[in-house]
Amino acid sequence: MKILEERILKDGVILNNEILKVDSFINHQIDVKLLRDISAYISAHFKGVNKIVTIETSGIPFALGVAQQFDDCPVVFAKKSKSAIVDENNIYTAEVKSFTRKTTSTISIDKRFLSKGDKVLIVDDFLAEGNAGLALASIIKEAGVELVGFATVIEKVFQGGRERLERQGIKVVACASIEAFIDNKPVFVEK
Amino acid sequence: MKILEERILKDGVILNNEILKVDSFINHQIDVKLLRDISAYISAHFKGVNKIVTIETSGIPFALGVAQQFDDCPVVFAKKSKSAIVDENNIYTAEVKSFTRKTTSTISIDKRFLSKGDKVLIVDDFLAEGNAGLALASIIKEAGVELVGFATVIEKVFQGGRERLERQGIKVVACASIEAFIDNKPVFVEK
Repeated sequence: MKILEERILKDGVILNNEILKVDSFINHQIDVKLLRDISAYISAHFKGVNKIVTIETSGIPFALGVAQQFDDCPVVFAKKSKSAIVDENNIYTAEVKSFTRKTTSTISIDKRFLSKGDKVLIVDDFLAEGNAGLALASIIKEAGVELVGFATVIEKVFQGGRERLERQGIKVVACASIEAFIDNKPVFVEK
Repeated sequence: MKILEERILKDGVILNNEILKVDSFINHQIDVKLLRDISAYISAHFKGVNKIVTIETSGIPFALGVAQQFDDCPVVFAKKSKSAIVDENNIYTAEVKSFTRKTTSTISIDKRFLSKGDKVLIVDDFLAEGNAGLALASIIKEAGVELVGFATVIEKVFQGGRERLERQGIKVVACASIEAFIDNKPVFVEK
């Protein structure tokens, strides 16, 4: 997506040739006009989706935008922390490491929200090592529902997430794919 | 909003005459069709809004839905936890207590994302004691930008949040206002 690549070049900040900060338009302040373009780009790559699954927090707005492209289908977001009002016997769980935070957490989805006939697309803001995607995919597999694919706004190809997901047979779509950071500038994969 | 009240009666679960669980359509799985109606209802009550502010996590989808009604204006969500990639000198912070979780946390918004000329509407999924709303309002006041009002999907009037916000001169709009739980059933304020 040219418009997203240009925006990353203009407003993204790269720290230590490793972390890309896009908090002015993706994951702290959200550019809602850009989100519409991102959602359209993602939805054009998949068919028959009737449920979007994401993980809190910053994947949620993009999950909603994509859901609106699939006839306003439901969005389910996996939770990272335990709520006082959740029935622990009734949830799917998986472990997920956070790349930027260097922590491991347990995510969960209530079993009621994944059911027979669901064709799930996972949507997230970033694909780095693929840990969030793999954790969500394992939950979807455990639930026995169909996983149509994984879509991300920004992918850092060199961190291996795409490869790990594709090795499990999961179709991966990214709006912008970064193959390297050189001198604190992103180099995009030509599409 | 009749349609929301009916949905709460149908799918909401009330625990101990105190906590309303709406995770099948509001804050774990999101009914995106209902979200469109909620967003339209909220936006009809305010004018001139050019930025939506919310707090992670479950306010985010509704903040986005309302932003789409205001010409796709930006959404800013306050963060609850510290990120490894945030410049601490450049954030507004406030303390907020969570009603359901019985915890206190520090929320923050990057100073770059509140600026002169902003007319901010706060959007959240629940209004109980009003702690999140008051914390966001204090950040907006500190930033010196205009607060147009506070909108919530569901309000529990008896927990005093509306009163505390209105006492500060903040206009409050709720899509469904619950005045009491009686025998684990919600009683709505007539509108």
